[in-house]
Amino acid sequence: MKTRIILLFFFFYFAFSFAKTTPTFPFSTIINRPNGLSASSAKAADNHKLYDTKYFTQILDHFTFTPQSYHTFQQRYLINDRYWGGAKNMAPIFVYMGNEGDIEWFTQNTGFMFDIAPHFNALLVFIEHRFYGKSVPFGGEKEAKSSSKTLGYLSSTQVLADYATLIIDLKKNLTATDSPVVVFGGSYGGMLAAWFRLKYPHVTIGALASSAPILYFENITSPYAFSDVITQDFRSESENCYKVIKGSWQLIQDIAEESGGLERLRKSFNICKNYISVGSLEGWLSTAYTYTAMTDYPTATNFLNPMPPYPVKQMCKAIDDPNHGSDPLAKLYSAVNIYYNYTGEVNNCFDLASSSDPHGLSGWSWQACTEMIMPLGGSNKDSIFPASEWDYNERAQYCKEAFKIEPRPNWITTEFGGHNIERVLKRFGSNIIFFNGLRDPWSAGGVLKNISKSLVAIIAKEGAHHVDLRFSTKEDPKWLKDVRRKEVEIIQKWISQYYHSLTDLI
Amino acid sequence: MKTRIILLFFFFYFAFSFAKTTPTFPFSTIINRPNGLSASSAKAADNHKLYDTKYFTQILDHFTFTPQSYHTFQQRYLINDRYWGGAKNMAPIFVYMGNEGDIEWFTQNTGFMFDIAPHFNALLVFIEHRFYGKSVPFGGEKEAKSSSKTLGYLSSTQVLADYATLIIDLKKNLTATDSPVVVFGGSYGGMLAAWFRLKYPHVTIGALASSAPILYFENITSPYAFSDVITQDFRSESENCYKVIKGSWQLIQDIAEESGGLERLRKSFNICKNYISVGSLEGWLSTAYTYTAMTDYPTATNFLNPMPPYPVKQMCKAIDDPNHGSDPLAKLYSAVNIYYNYTGEVNNCFDLASSSDPHGLSGWSWQACTEMIMPLGGSNKDSIFPASEWDYNERAQYCKEAFKIEPRPNWITTEFGGHNIERVLKRFGSNIIFFNGLRDPWSAGGVLKNISKSLVAIIAKEGAHHVDLRFSTKEDPKWLKDVRRKEVEIIQKWISQYYHSLTDLI
Repeated sequence: MKTRIILLFFFFYFAFSFAKTTPTFPFSTIINRPNGLSASSAKAADNHKLYDTKYFTQILDHFTFTPQSYHTFQQRYLINDRYWGGAKNMAPIFVYMGNEGDIEWFTQNTGFMFDIAPHFNALLVFIEHRFYGKSVPFGGEKEAKSSSKTLGYLSSTQVLADYATLIIDLKKNLTATDSPVVVFGGSYGGMLAAWFRLKYPHVTIGALASSAPILYFENITSPYAFSDVITQDFRSESENCYKVIKGSWQLIQDIAEESGGLERLRKSFNICKNYISVGSLEGWLSTAYTYTAMTDYPTATNFLNPMPPYPVKQMCKAIDDPNHGSDPLAKLYSAVNIYYNYTGEVNNCFDLASSSDPHGLSGWSWQACTEMIMPLGGSNKDSIFPASEWDYNERAQYCKEAFKIEPRPNWITTEFGGHNIERVLKRFGSNIIFFNGLRDPWSAGGVLKNISKSLVAIIAKEGAHHVDLRFSTKEDPKWLKDVRRKEVEIIQKWISQYYHSLTDLI
Repeated sequence: MKTRIILLFFFFYFAFSFAKTTPTFPFSTIINRPNGLSASSAKAADNHKLYDTKYFTQILDHFTFTPQSYHTFQQRYLINDRYWGGAKNMAPIFVYMGNEGDIEWFTQNTGFMFDIAPHFNALLVFIEHRFYGKSVPFGGEKEAKSSSKTLGYLSSTQVLADYATLIIDLKKNLTATDSPVVVFGGSYGGMLAAWFRLKYPHVTIGALASSAPILYFENITSPYAFSDVITQDFRSESENCYKVIKGSWQLIQDIAEESGGLERLRKSFNICKNYISVGSLEGWLSTAYTYTAMTDYPTATNFLNPMPPYPVKQMCKAIDDPNHGSDPLAKLYSAVNIYYNYTGEVNNCFDLASSSDPHGLSGWSWQACTEMIMPLGGSNKDSIFPASEWDYNERAQYCKEAFKIEPRPNWITTEFGGHNIERVLKRFGSNIIFFNGLRDPWSAGGVLKNISKSLVAIIAKEGAHHVDLRFSTKEDPKWLKDVRRKEVEIIQKWISQYYHSLTDLI
């Protein structure tokens, strides 16, 4: 495994060498799981319907006026008005900026908005991202994703304009033009939320951008930083755990070179017979460590896979456990089982050739080949992963082969900025919360310092990927409750200021 | 003349009835003039070359990734480094945001930037707007303007992205990434400058938006306001002048209905024999009053046509002059001659069928049919023009016939805002000067009140359309000098703050 490409927040972390030999893209290492509610959201769903489903006729291309640009598609959004104080009271509207997948999945995992809606008497709206879920132009997945002629309309700027258009229209239809809108988003959706407040301040009064690595572009953030956080996560649990994983890559290579070695590896990790390679196995393992680090939540979760509280600790426990004997392969297998098979439901083998995509995230491979060029995947000599370099040319070559497309690696910073963000935004813009959990590798590309009085960074040393947006539970630790309380206070302030501004200016 | 469409800041103010019968579009009422420097800029040109001409390879579509979007074109920009303090000193860069015409013409009429460049040691850059002048995609005018398939890429958002892309690249090439950029623009270019600061704060530290009617969209500004300012301009000079012009429309209609009446009108106004109609004559007269009001400058100018100082006063003098006898037609002819033939160079007749377009402004008709739906051209009963209503459907119908296109009348406010601008921007954004001269009908759609400490309105009661951007002359009145001094002070403050921010954050 010379280099790796981390193509997505969630699903497309894979060994590039594998991609080269098996060019099915996207490659998902997630084993089929029931695509259901998380434990806590399921609980909420017991009590009442979480949302109604609606559709909006959206324009294909906001920025040009070619005949093609006038095409439309049905954009799905989910709405919950159970807590809303109504248009007459100018009660707030909370909008979730859908990210790279089925909006139902994200909605069911964004309990924070449901938790705080009653306090704010807020209307809840969750908008699906174009080209994902049921919001696919050109009449269907197959037509939409057949070539760059159609996929070309999948871009972040179009998405932001979709959201602006839909929100303005929805408010008009509800005669709620004076209701303040607050936008929420996590991960890529958090980037969208931050950018939306910066670009559409006339549509939203503020944004909660959770775990949004808006600085992971060009050379703003080190390509090693992502891996460094993962390394640190494991190392903080146990130096032995870190060493075992770090040493395993060479071990796997060595075994694979032995006669019958690959078969031994296959059996050790319970990989299905249909396909194995060193690259794919290493990708499969890396994925487990990476996503476990990302979702190192303090309570049990079913966001990616069912996982116990503090899963990194659990993984290291498995590795450090003397009961597993001295076989490092057995230790590793036991560790990655925390990620791949915590509930023990997988009775069969793990299929490395599987390309299941339960949450409909395949569009990200296109985004990662056009504008979302996030230079990560480098690993230095102390990394828990094998040493490797971020290589733009490798990405570009891949994109050429996969989509006949040339990335635009400078576009995101041209359109949204990022360089010297403190200097640029110190006297510009307002009302964005940048939340980051420092256990989350994506935090390396996040805004970690206050920029101004109202462009604020909230940091949780113990936090993982947008942990603040999850449904609250009784077991939540104090630091997490504190984070959410602070967020609620700030959002409350935005809304109060907004209501004041209505009378100030009369 | 039932209704009129004012399609452009400068050139496409015409009687709709005329357009219907003579669907050549655009219709320019400007008689051919030498397309040269203004008196003062010509003087400056004597001393040294005003600029060098360069080209930048610009991408066709920034916001999609279709194969077509990767096409490129050569974008022209003019540059003057005579005053620049250089990259090492982080000396500022002043960028003019080209508007709807040949960039050389605008550059030669934006003396303010040349006047203040030595004080700031500033590099001067003037970027041409796509689809105008020499910056035309698809290989040439004919190919580019043949249909909506190509014209579709002429849009304000693409233009702003062009400017961001070009500026970032230019700074990189000059190793001047730390030089602060201030953007300037007048009229539509002023709108672009204001929007550029709002959308690309990472590219520019501030914008001087001169006479930028960013509020003339949807129902934010009254459709009558534009005409009202013109009415007030003439009425403030003389009640009789106003009454003569106001009464002339009925008079012309009456004469036209007489036998031989049209021929009498033709002779009275020295119109060429090839074409006359009541609508075209009225359009021709309206244009003179409108553009004279817009360019009611305190000193002689050659921006549109050669004109004396305070041309509205001159027009009214001509109308009120007892030497012109009691024939209202003779009075009117004498008045509009101030606009059409001040220097007496036109020895021939005036050709109402002429569609000359010396400054290459024809692209505006497309922009006015897609996004630039500015609801003006209504005239109430006190108007100097015949009573009329703004009629969106009429515009839409025209655009359908001319371009087979449907306008998107809500797009500009969706993308750039405008509603409740004070409330929206009170706590968002910074560093924009909105200059407006209240003699300028476009001021009706401008920002006329301070929004915040650094989003400021500068108003000149006596001022006309972006008068502040003209070359300064010895004859400039005190109020104009005051306006420019204030603008320089504010720009100086932005630059100082920027330099401070460099050290503050180290």
